[in-house]
This record gives sequence, C-alpha cells and structure tokens, in this order.
Amino acid sequence: MKKLINDPKAVVDESVQGFGQAHADLVTVSADPTFITRKDAPVSGKVGLVSGGGSGHEPLHAGFVGRGMLDAAVPGAVFTSPTPDQILPATHAVNSGAGVVHIVKNYTGDVLNFETAAELAEAEGVNVRTVLVNDDVAVEDSLYTAGRRGVGGTVLVEKIAGAAAERGDGLDVVAAIGERVNSNVRTMGVALSACTVPHAGSPSFDLAEDEIEIGIGIHGEPGRHRIPMENADGITDRLLAPVLADLGISSGDRVLLFVNGMGGTPLSELYIVYRRAAQVLADRGAAVERSLVGNYITALEMQGCSISVLRLDDELTELWDAPVHTAALRWGV
Amino acid sequence: MKKLINDPKAVVDESVQGFGQAHADLVTVSADPTFITRKDAPVSGKVGLVSGGGSGHEPLHAGFVGRGMLDAAVPGAVFTSPTPDQILPATHAVNSGAGVVHIVKNYTGDVLNFETAAELAEAEGVNVRTVLVNDDVAVEDSLYTAGRRGVGGTVLVEKIAGAAAERGDGLDVVAAIGERVNSNVRTMGVALSACTVPHAGSPSFDLAEDEIEIGIGIHGEPGRHRIPMENADGITDRLLAPVLADLGISSGDRVLLFVNGMGGTPLSELYIVYRRAAQVLADRGAAVERSLVGNYITALEMQGCSISVLRLDDELTELWDAPVHTAALRWGV
Repeated sequence: MKKLINDPKAVVDESVQGFGQAHADLVTVSADPTFITRKDAPVSGKVGLVSGGGSGHEPLHAGFVGRGMLDAAVPGAVFTSPTPDQILPATHAVNSGAGVVHIVKNYTGDVLNFETAAELAEAEGVNVRTVLVNDDVAVEDSLYTAGRRGVGGTVLVEKIAGAAAERGDGLDVVAAIGERVNSNVRTMGVALSACTVPHAGSPSFDLAEDEIEIGIGIHGEPGRHRIPMENADGITDRLLAPVLADLGISSGDRVLLFVNGMGGTPLSELYIVYRRAAQVLADRGAAVERSLVGNYITALEMQGCSISVLRLDDELTELWDAPVHTAALRWGV
Repeated sequence: MKKLINDPKAVVDESVQGFGQAHADLVTVSADPTFITRKDAPVSGKVGLVSGGGSGHEPLHAGFVGRGMLDAAVPGAVFTSPTPDQILPATHAVNSGAGVVHIVKNYTGDVLNFETAAELAEAEGVNVRTVLVNDDVAVEDSLYTAGRRGVGGTVLVEKIAGAAAERGDGLDVVAAIGERVNSNVRTMGVALSACTVPHAGSPSFDLAEDEIEIGIGIHGEPGRHRIPMENADGITDRLLAPVLADLGISSGDRVLLFVNGMGGTPLSELYIVYRRAAQVLADRGAAVERSLVGNYITALEMQGCSISVLRLDDELTELWDAPVHTAALRWGV
C-alpha cells in the first residue's frame, strides 16, 4: 500500500484539517467530535442541511458545504458511518430555528445513526426531516444495505435541496424537493480496480487483470456481476441501459447526465464515457440539458466510474442552476 | 491495461468530442486539425491566449478554455506535442487583431512546434508573444527538455495571464504578466505509481512496491532520485524544501499554495499534503493567502502529487481572484 498519508488512524483528522485550512473562507471545522459547517452557520431563517457518511468518498460531503448546498458535513472513519454524537451537534450548529434536513445515503449504519441523532435532536426541540438517497439500480440488497444503495444521486440531491433551502423554502418543502430528486435519479457504476482502506492496508477485493465489476458500490462492495474487460462504449451501454429502463426515460424527456469518476480514473476517460452516454440518450430522443463530469463521489483511488441520469423539470433545472459556492462545486458567485 | 477507452488511437478525439458536448455552452471543438476555442472567440479587442501540449494531463489545457483564462487549447496525442498545423489555425481563430500570446510548457517538441506556428502566424500578420513555463525545480534537463520543465505553474500562468487579457491589457503586458508568474512560481512532484500511455499498453516505468520517485515529471520521466516510501509529511518536506529554497521564500512573503494531484491520488490525500505544506510555510513566516487543491495538471492515472508555491503581490492576487468561467476552474460568474 502506497498512500500520501501519515498514521493510517489519523487519515480523516489530518485530511479534514487540511481541508479546513485550504477553505477557511468557506468552512469551519469542529473537532471532538468532528464535523464541518458553513462559515456563516446557522443562516438566519434558513432550513439547515446536514449530510455525512463514511470518509473516502471525497469531495463528498465536506466539499459540498457552503452557500447553496450543505450547511454541515459529518465524516465518519473511512467507509464507516459517522456517530450520533457527531451528527447531533452538527444538527444543532446549523439550526436557525427553521429546522434541519438530514440527507442520508441508504446504508444500514448511516440510516441507524442519523435516525438516532434525529430523535435526540427532536427531543431537544429541533425539527428534523430525513431524505433517504437510494439511487443505485445495481442491486437490491448489499453487504452494507437493506434496499438500494445511495450513490451518485446524492450529489444532485444535495445541490438541488441546498438551492431550495437557500431560496427560503420551508422544512417540508426542502425535504420534498430532495425526495423528488431521489425519485427521479438512477445510477450504476463499474470498477476496473479495487481500492485500499488505509487502516486495512490491502485491497478490499481482487479483480483479475482482464475483469471488471459491473454495478460496484462506492465501498468496493460487490455489484451485479463480473465480466471480462470491454471497451468504453460497451461498458457505458451496460451501465446506462438499466438506469434508463428503471427511470423509464423516453423520447422528449429532459435530463441531467452525470458521469462520475471513482477517484483513480483520468478525466479524459470520463469524457469518453460521457460521449457515448450522450449519444445513447440522443438516440432515445432524450435531451441532455445539464451535465456534470468529474470526481464527485469516489471510492478512494478506485478506477472506474458511475453514470447517473436525473429527469429534469423546470423547477429542478432552476434549482440546479442556482448559485453555489463550495470547495468542489461553484458557480454564479 | 484496463482503461475506459475504445480504440487506443481514438482516445484524444473521443475524449475531446465528449468534452465539447459536455461543455457546449463554453467551448467550440474544431476537428481536422483538432483544437478547442472559447465559444465567443475571437473576443473583440482582447489579446488571445493559446496553450497546448500533449494530452494526458487533463483538465489541462482544454479545461481552462473560457472567460478569464485561455481562448484556445491545442491537444496533441497523449504525451506528444501538438503540431504547427493545429497551433496555427487556433492562433488565427482567437486573434481579434490585438495579438496572441502562446503559453508553452518547456518541452523540446512543444517549444519547436509553437515556435514554428508563431513564425507562420507572424508572417500572416498576427502579432505573437510566447511565454515559456519552466517552473520545475527537480531537474535541469530531462528526457523531454533542455532546461527546466513546465509543470504545475502552468495552471497559474494561464489563470493570471488570462485575467490580464480579460481586463484589456495589451499584448506585451499580458506576456510580461505571464512571465512574472513564471518567475515567481516553483514546483516539485512525486510519483507513487507509474501511468500507462493507451497506445503503448504497458506502464511507462516501474516503481517497486516500497519505492517512490521524487521530482517526477508529468510524463513519468525520471526525477531526482528514487527513495523508499515515506509518510506524507516526510514527502511533503522533501518536495517543498527545494521549492522554497529556489524561490527564496522568507518571512513576510505572501504566497499561493497549489497542491496538485497527478490523476490517481484521492483528494483526501492531497489535503493531508496541503496541511503539512501550510504548516511548513507558516513556520517560515510566509502567509498562505490563496490555495488550490485538486487534479489540475495530471499524468493520466499516475498516483502522486506536486506542490507549487507562487509568490504573490497585490496585482497577481487581484488577477488570481478575477472571475473565471472554464470547465475546470470557475468562480465569480
């Protein structure tokens, strides 16, 4: 294992410290317990948005803290849920009185710990709503999940619900918009190589030199099946077909196409995947009206990508376009 | 070799096509010969900025085409200089009459081909100035270079010279500002793993499991020396010491700190490097006033990073902060 780290046990703390220093204009990092808040939190009258989960998926979630997106991010250890004693103070820190939305990827540990924190916060007088993200069409249950996993769609839920909160929508409306994004987005991923959790020290699974894993999760947990290596167009077709079928995309639909890197794949390859996916969507008569290409929800240094398609309407498009100012997504400001 | 590609010979064309589709609001892609221009080029009265070089370093250069940065990017084959017959039409396409600045990384092929294109353009009535970037402190000569190589500093030259052109500075002033950035920036990199050029099919060099290459170039060409693997703080100190010595950084200096990923290293690790580098600079009494952390000039899927330090003054800071709207860098708009 060769990584740019010091003590494997200090990876999350040191990385979050560096993040806080590099983006001191945007965020405040709290230690013991660790969470990251928007510099001006709580924003008076605004619904607060909190997300979190295991580390190792950067820039998710801390990279999305700032104006127009998250108010707080709560990082667990690598690939390990954050604890209620982190989530609870983050929830309080961003509550201006208008309530707090928890955006939770559907993994058993995350769901349990956010639920516990939400109950404690409610008992202490904070109104909390939870948006569960479960956009992965690859598998129904997995090593870490009952039901579908939350993957690429999480980025889109956070951006769009964040814009709703920023424009002043109330607690139930922000939560409903987050759920609407989740209902209209589907994702599927592929791994070309494994990743290594720092404190484990060896790859979390093995893939032969001529094998890829279709439907991989963002922790390297198994997907649908292993197949021999194919070319980019073939892989793109395999990922996109179940996404479009599950979402029922047909002629005239307007979509956002999101090609996400798993961390170790060059950007140039993501654009080759984008090219094919855009072509398949055009052939279906769907209009790709918005795009996102890059490493936004990763699995450490894993090579591979995921493709997400979000069905757009006027309001979701307007909220997507709204100004955002975070470390990893920024426009309009 | 497992890559998300189709025909290895089509990698650059297909990637550039996907890039053009994903960012159709920002850029126009020309084929035969291939170059990428800002959508509204030529911008009336503005000095045009053209850069280019071998592909495989994405988002450099195409990702930096747009308002406030480059007017055109000219991609060669992977790790291979673009040809004069690409550079010349790109130069014409962005010339509004105010002249064109070529930003050229110091590699023998790039220098020759940009020089030829500049001579042809001059003969056809376009005023051209060339800014040579040679910020790498690792080696004096290399496999691809006479003199120092152009690496991470290129991103900063393109941003700051781009802002100068955008505010209306004349040809000689824009070139002088680009040269001022180059004179005030130094960079050094490290590789933890090799990368594989698609049409070659096997890694461009070998690194043992416990070895790293200090002073690596962005094509995987050798650096200063190979040493046993060290921790992130140790590696950061090794990279930063010659950068600071060569630049003569001392107490009271104001700097921009740029930690760049080589393509296959997780963002979380770049922040661990940032943390240490910021600490070393603080210990020297230097003020880190601006930061950039991420994958901006890469070597395909290589694992590793580079550290660049730019000495700031008021004008360079103002130009860094100026609005920019490209695929890979965006703020203020």
